Amino acid sequence: MASLESFRWYEHRVVVQPHHTDYAGIVWHGTYIAWMEEARVNYLSACGLTFADWIKASVDLPVVDLGLKYRRSLTLGDTALVNARLEPAKGVRLVWHYDIQNAATQETCIEGSVTLVPVDVKTRRVLRRLPAPLQAVLESML
Amino acid sequence: MASLESFRWYEHRVVVQPHHTDYAGIVWHGTYIAWMEEARVNYLSACGLTFADWIKASVDLPVVDLGLKYRRSLTLGDTALVNARLEPAKGVRLVWHYDIQNAATQETCIEGSVTLVPVDVKTRRVLRRLPAPLQAVLESML
Amino acid sequence: MASLESFRWYEHRVVVQPHHTDYAGIVWHGTYIAWMEEARVNYLSACGLTFADWIKASVDLPVVDLGLKYRRSLTLGDTALVNARLEPAKGVRLVWHYDIQNAATQETCIEGSVTLVPVDVKTRRVLRRLPAPLQAVLESML
Amino acid sequence: MASLESFRWYEHRVVVQPHHTDYAGIVWHGTYIAWMEEARVNYLSACGLTFADWIKASVDLPVVDLGLKYRRSLTLGDTALVNARLEPAKGVRLVWHYDIQNAATQETCIEGSVTLVPVDVKTRRVLRRLPAPLQAVLESML
Repeated sequence: MASLESFRWYEHRVVVQPHHTDYAGIVWHGTYIAWMEEARVNYLSACGLTFADWIKASVDLPVVDLGLKYRRSLTLGDTALVNARLEPAKGVRLVWHYDIQNAATQETCIEGSVTLVPVDVKTRRVLRRLPAPLQAVLESML
Repeated sequence: MASLESFRWYEHRVVVQPHHTDYAGIVWHGTYIAWMEEARVNYLSACGLTFADWIKASVDLPVVDLGLKYRRSLTLGDTALVNARLEPAKGVRLVWHYDIQNAATQETCIEGSVTLVPVDVKTRRVLRRLPAPLQAVLESML
Repeated sequence: MASLESFRWYEHRVVVQPHHTDYAGIVWHGTYIAWMEEARVNYLSACGLTFADWIKASVDLPVVDLGLKYRRSLTLGDTALVNARLEPAKGVRLVWHYDIQNAATQETCIEGSVTLVPVDVKTRRVLRRLPAPLQAVLESML
Repeated sequence: MASLESFRWYEHRVVVQPHHTDYAGIVWHGTYIAWMEEARVNYLSACGLTFADWIKASVDLPVVDLGLKYRRSLTLGDTALVNARLEPAKGVRLVWHYDIQNAATQETCIEGSVTLVPVDVKTRRVLRRLPAPLQAVLESML
């Protein structure tokens, strides 16, 4: 875990809306998948890597693995801090770690990870390496 | 309204799931938009017009107008009957009417309508007329 | 329309994410319903009226009417300005108007309106008047 | 794995709709969470255990753990077979396994598992054991 310490966490803030909740009055368990996507898209964008850049390079980034542990629930009106961190690259896979907290208590509510792989937009084949300009931005994020 | 009577209603059945509901214990108001889409896609498909057919003809069908009136709510575990009916064509616009009922009581819960127009997939321009094979299927539905 | 001019527009900014889009590469037509909810919830909250306040007063605010006109589409990576404005009250109904623009062009993409009515949380009956503290906040918004 | 063989798979069929897809033309990765919920809710309901039964027993069933592996994508118009299987109980945890296939090819597209725990509806505390009538239905499913 020590090596992870060198990576910055990115904080994405979400106020829990009615459409995020279910009949139990808490955030529906699938809603977090969207928040996690927003966090990593905004993070990359803040680092200068927008979706337009990926598409211009003919690269799409499908999710291949996803895992979540639900420790505490969030409720209507709560503010969630969706903290996202990119793991140092092993090959072309992008592995993201998440720690979703309740802003009021700073307690961890959800822990998760998501793995994406770059594919060619047209053939959907996994790329052996990222196009150089994209790779450069990812490395600058460390 | 008389002319509408000549059209068949298509019934799409949905059992209310947790992910359809919100904190109030009832179906979230935006959820119905997805059910209405499912009803018209399944209806056209049952009439022999699949999405693959539209795409092969380079046609997309974006929504240009949508209206809903919410009269009664639906609750977790309820069965909804999403009744859909296509209005006789005026030009290229497809106008759908909806009557969403609670299967247990046959009472109308939601009334709605959705208007779609055919556009060219690439230019996104509105078509002056539907490709003949698509038009033929729509006419056979009356 | 003149009387509406006296009301402030509230701007809610949304960056279009993958989960907002559909196969056509544009924002799925039902996605806007969630953005419009976020805009009015955040607006009321910014004026000092949180969901917790409504619930403490035993009031829920279901949507009874919704209408949207889709004029232009929004695409992955676009920034949307979801502008929301509350109409001067006629009785207990809250009528919201929306003008959703593409931030890059300031062009209107979607126009819409949503009507909500206050109901008792337990009986789900429509209230004859809003509880005084809630009414006071709404009036202060004009 | 041998002991799992004694459990029945439940098949939940879903036709991929526009609202399930994203800009890449394939099912958005978070959509599967909803399909998996539908499969287990319908399975339990088919076995005589509806949500009304859970609530009458003051039990809610939040998800505590979720994992997905994405092997192949599904596209607009595809029919998905969401196969769900309940693992033999270890204590009060309900562990579900999923094998989501493309009906046309019978190939596995997504593998997943979801763990739920029974909690008291009001206190949200984990129950030490399931109420007897619910336990009886679960055992009859084996």
